[in-house]
Amino acid sequence: MRSELGTAPSVRASALTFTESLVATIAAKGSHLCVGLDPDLSALPTEFEPDPDEVLRYITGIVEATVEFAAAYKPNSAFYEVMGPAGMEVLQAVIASVPKGVPVILDGKRGDIANTDERYASACFDVYGATAATVSPYLGRDSLEPFIRRADRGVFVVCRTSNPGSGDVQELRVGDRPLYLEVAARCREWNTNGNVGLVAGATHPNDIAAVRVECPGMPILIPGVGAQAGDLEGAVAAAAGEGGQEPFLVSASRAIVSASRGADFQHAAADVA
Amino acid sequence: MRSELGTAPSVRASALTFTESLVATIAAKGSHLCVGLDPDLSALPTEFEPDPDEVLRYITGIVEATVEFAAAYKPNSAFYEVMGPAGMEVLQAVIASVPKGVPVILDGKRGDIANTDERYASACFDVYGATAATVSPYLGRDSLEPFIRRADRGVFVVCRTSNPGSGDVQELRVGDRPLYLEVAARCREWNTNGNVGLVAGATHPNDIAAVRVECPGMPILIPGVGAQAGDLEGAVAAAAGEGGQEPFLVSASRAIVSASRGADFQHAAADVA
Repeated sequence: MRSELGTAPSVRASALTFTESLVATIAAKGSHLCVGLDPDLSALPTEFEPDPDEVLRYITGIVEATVEFAAAYKPNSAFYEVMGPAGMEVLQAVIASVPKGVPVILDGKRGDIANTDERYASACFDVYGATAATVSPYLGRDSLEPFIRRADRGVFVVCRTSNPGSGDVQELRVGDRPLYLEVAARCREWNTNGNVGLVAGATHPNDIAAVRVECPGMPILIPGVGAQAGDLEGAVAAAAGEGGQEPFLVSASRAIVSASRGADFQHAAADVA
Repeated sequence: MRSELGTAPSVRASALTFTESLVATIAAKGSHLCVGLDPDLSALPTEFEPDPDEVLRYITGIVEATVEFAAAYKPNSAFYEVMGPAGMEVLQAVIASVPKGVPVILDGKRGDIANTDERYASACFDVYGATAATVSPYLGRDSLEPFIRRADRGVFVVCRTSNPGSGDVQELRVGDRPLYLEVAARCREWNTNGNVGLVAGATHPNDIAAVRVECPGMPILIPGVGAQAGDLEGAVAAAAGEGGQEPFLVSASRAIVSASRGADFQHAAADVA
């Protein structure tokens, strides 16, 4: 690894880029599992009350139960914001509860003009302590610069999502291809610090394959894994690429983790490897 | 007004849509000014310390000084998030300090899959008490449904931004026009509840004119007004449309407000009217 560092721009010789760290973590854990930390106040286990302190106890319990096979954690900001300021304290404590060495991806899909995005990047990385963030591509490269500049932190650009209406904008044709692939091409250009990845939903394995071809070596974060085991295998194979060695994370809610203890993911990933 | 309500879908007979309310507020105030409430901790007036309580005192002072000619207020979430959980308490108090009848647009440019966006909409409208929100179009119609469903609340979709890199994605050609105009066309389709508007930056008056043609009757929020007075006049004329009566807001930072007491905006708006 070290011998390759000299060729990466803007990277201090003493530090790995985010992507290099993530690859090392995935290898060390033998897992591509990213555990979603999204407390649904209306569906907590019966032993927990829907208040901030209890939510924190619940979520830190999930972290403890999954840390052995989690290659990353991903709290979605919306689930904490809806609890008000106290929810943001929970978010801060949740991120702090994750052992060092396991990246935390704060999923907020932020994106604003540079002056404002400075604040979002600082809030995400410095105030809340996340290792990585999801961001929106719509405002362009300079809007994401405050995130991308931090080579030791990860920036997952939302590219292809799993919701029913994802095609409204993402499938618009730009020349001979859909917009999301044009966005993927931009992300490859923007990856000058070795820390940019992409978000591509599990419901579109063929699209993940196209994103993989467009962005070799860049991590793909795959949310949208529900009951569809078939999509999972296809998505994992697509993200791992032809040689089966490309970096990716599969994000799963606790329901999946509890149901399978991650075995499906390990199996799917092992198949590809 | 009342007689038109019967034709608007999903609107209770007793309530105005957000756009109807905004039009009434702009008329009553005789102003299109939207006052930005974005505390820059490194540039507060010398009498204020950079801590949450002082920021609240500073911002509520701005609200008091401008309420006579403000048609709306717009706190940008990033400036509060960077202060941590205490900053979100400030945001809550800032929004509560605005007199009823003056809309507060919480500028967060949110957008996520529907299940998650439910939380963002609830946080924005119910927990923080905003009247309107800015959102990102990239995930499509269903991702914005939890915002759009609230007919009495406003949804400003980010369409054309003022930053240098806005063209990276927004100017990609979709058929014979740029992506941002295709997004504008989608917003027109999505405006089934009379509460969808668009964000279009002051640095592109010609583009605002094109958005106006695409989206008649829908409010346009114009940020990016800095030292460029020329752009302001052009932007205002474009947003007001051919008859000069279309709804729009011009968002200005406190520097502008202090410098001119809003006179430029009043003047520019009066020119068009």
